[in-house]
Amino acid sequence: MHRFERDTLRRRTDSAFGETRAIRFQDVDAAGIIFYPRLFEYCHDTLVSLFAAAGAALHENLRSPTWLAPIRHAEADYFKPLRFGDSIEVAIVAAVLADSEVSLGFRIAKADKDEVCAVAQSVHTFVNPSTFQRCPVPEPLRVAFLRIAG
Amino acid sequence: MHRFERDTLRRRTDSAFGETRAIRFQDVDAAGIIFYPRLFEYCHDTLVSLFAAAGAALHENLRSPTWLAPIRHAEADYFKPLRFGDSIEVAIVAAVLADSEVSLGFRIAKADKDEVCAVAQSVHTFVNPSTFQRCPVPEPLRVAFLRIAG
Amino acid sequence: MHRFERDTLRRRTDSAFGETRAIRFQDVDAAGIIFYPRLFEYCHDTLVSLFAAAGAALHENLRSPTWLAPIRHAEADYFKPLRFGDSIEVAIVAAVLADSEVSLGFRIAKADKDEVCAVAQSVHTFVNPSTFQRCPVPEPLRVAFLRIAG
Amino acid sequence: MHRFERDTLRRRTDSAFGETRAIRFQDVDAAGIIFYPRLFEYCHDTLVSLFAAAGAALHENLRSPTWLAPIRHAEADYFKPLRFGDSIEVAIVAAVLADSEVSLGFRIAKADKDEVCAVAQSVHTFVNPSTFQRCPVPEPLRVAFLRIAG
Repeated sequence: MHRFERDTLRRRTDSAFGETRAIRFQDVDAAGIIFYPRLFEYCHDTLVSLFAAAGAALHENLRSPTWLAPIRHAEADYFKPLRFGDSIEVAIVAAVLADSEVSLGFRIAKADKDEVCAVAQSVHTFVNPSTFQRCPVPEPLRVAFLRIAG
Repeated sequence: MHRFERDTLRRRTDSAFGETRAIRFQDVDAAGIIFYPRLFEYCHDTLVSLFAAAGAALHENLRSPTWLAPIRHAEADYFKPLRFGDSIEVAIVAAVLADSEVSLGFRIAKADKDEVCAVAQSVHTFVNPSTFQRCPVPEPLRVAFLRIAG
Repeated sequence: MHRFERDTLRRRTDSAFGETRAIRFQDVDAAGIIFYPRLFEYCHDTLVSLFAAAGAALHENLRSPTWLAPIRHAEADYFKPLRFGDSIEVAIVAAVLADSEVSLGFRIAKADKDEVCAVAQSVHTFVNPSTFQRCPVPEPLRVAFLRIAG
Repeated sequence: MHRFERDTLRRRTDSAFGETRAIRFQDVDAAGIIFYPRLFEYCHDTLVSLFAAAGAALHENLRSPTWLAPIRHAEADYFKPLRFGDSIEVAIVAAVLADSEVSLGFRIAKADKDEVCAVAQSVHTFVNPSTFQRCPVPEPLRVAFLRIAG
């Protein structure tokens, strides 16, 4: 299982896949900053967008799945607090592919001043929905991940 | 479709089905009070507990469903703000049954001083999962609803 | 407190304020359709966007609030199930103003075929953050609500 | 920053602080298993309970905070899928203290058969709310963490 050094995820690469959004009103907690699990939700939203952009939309696949990609590992490092209304870019900046697994690196930065506030990573294993045996990474996703890997 | 007058839901009845819980850290919003849709989540949690107590646990039914109970209508009135850490009782205090439908009334009060902070209601239609035609209310739920109706 | 007839909210008006989005992966429940309180979250997101478009962004106001707009009442009617990946428009299609209160009507439709799946409404009271006494609706919001009212 | 080996978190220790709960209806995703960020929410809920049990309830502290404990790092490993209705124990099974920091280890197991489904960890830094300088771990929390450390 590949694990990124967190500092390598601070860099915005040209091949990154990014989305801009704002921190939602309901995603902060009683301390007034983003509730930390919400960051993983934002990362997952961007992954869903990547799948769609790659021509392998998750909601279409789930109707009659030919693969599933359960998560094995997730982690995040938090550098600066994010507050309601902050405009951020969530970008997938790194990808390391193995036979039936991908490790993805995420970079969360304030959109207007390119200030890195957090980084995250997740490891997904591709499996056959019937047998739950490992299967190859589906071709359109493999291409998309390799493009990010640069 | 039966709709309760909101003031009738302010009363705690002896036949109510209630649960005590605390407002979660992550369920407040950037204004520091409960994010209003979270109240519906708390009501639904109590409904799930009622189903389990009635011997018709929703998670068991969903494995191979013999009925579904999609929501047709939901509403809530907010009287007093709820904050992180507040201890509340969420109680189902009213139920009106029709052939394949139930209207439920919820009362949310501060647990320690019995102060009503909100009331809510929801209307669920029971349907056959294969045909999506209306079906009778399952017997254990009918009994549980009638007990609340008093 | 003004309450809309639900059928009046089924119509998309020219003066509506709408946003297009997709149902998120995490916003469905164990029955595979949108968890009903999530619809209120989507409505609130669109309201936050309206405030920003009106020049009265909620996150800016909350830094040193000159008004608050707590919710008094919320309700929704669910006509058709929404599933992960469905592309929807959430539009504010109606507004009724009183001195220190606004009732808003929401229409949720499948974006590609203009099929109404749900309607919702909420009532907000404007208050002074120091005294919690009712205050006038702030001017930029009053203008925005009147534009929707048509 | 201390990081636990994930296998060390698989063991239930006598000094662990645990809570039993069920996977909520709304905490699964469109693939039918727990949406992975929800696991961090469950861990945080147990941490909030630990703070309260230690006599340093977070909601009381936040009214006029003498310390804050922002998160620096969080991670989780997922071994087995969790589904709606599964009864689990979320236990804090490890704690490593530094001057103004704590690393906590979490173990999530099916309550009825003691089957480990996931482990998680988080690192919190204690800071002075006025200066945001690091401060000592508050005494009641230090005691509680040391008890878990065993």
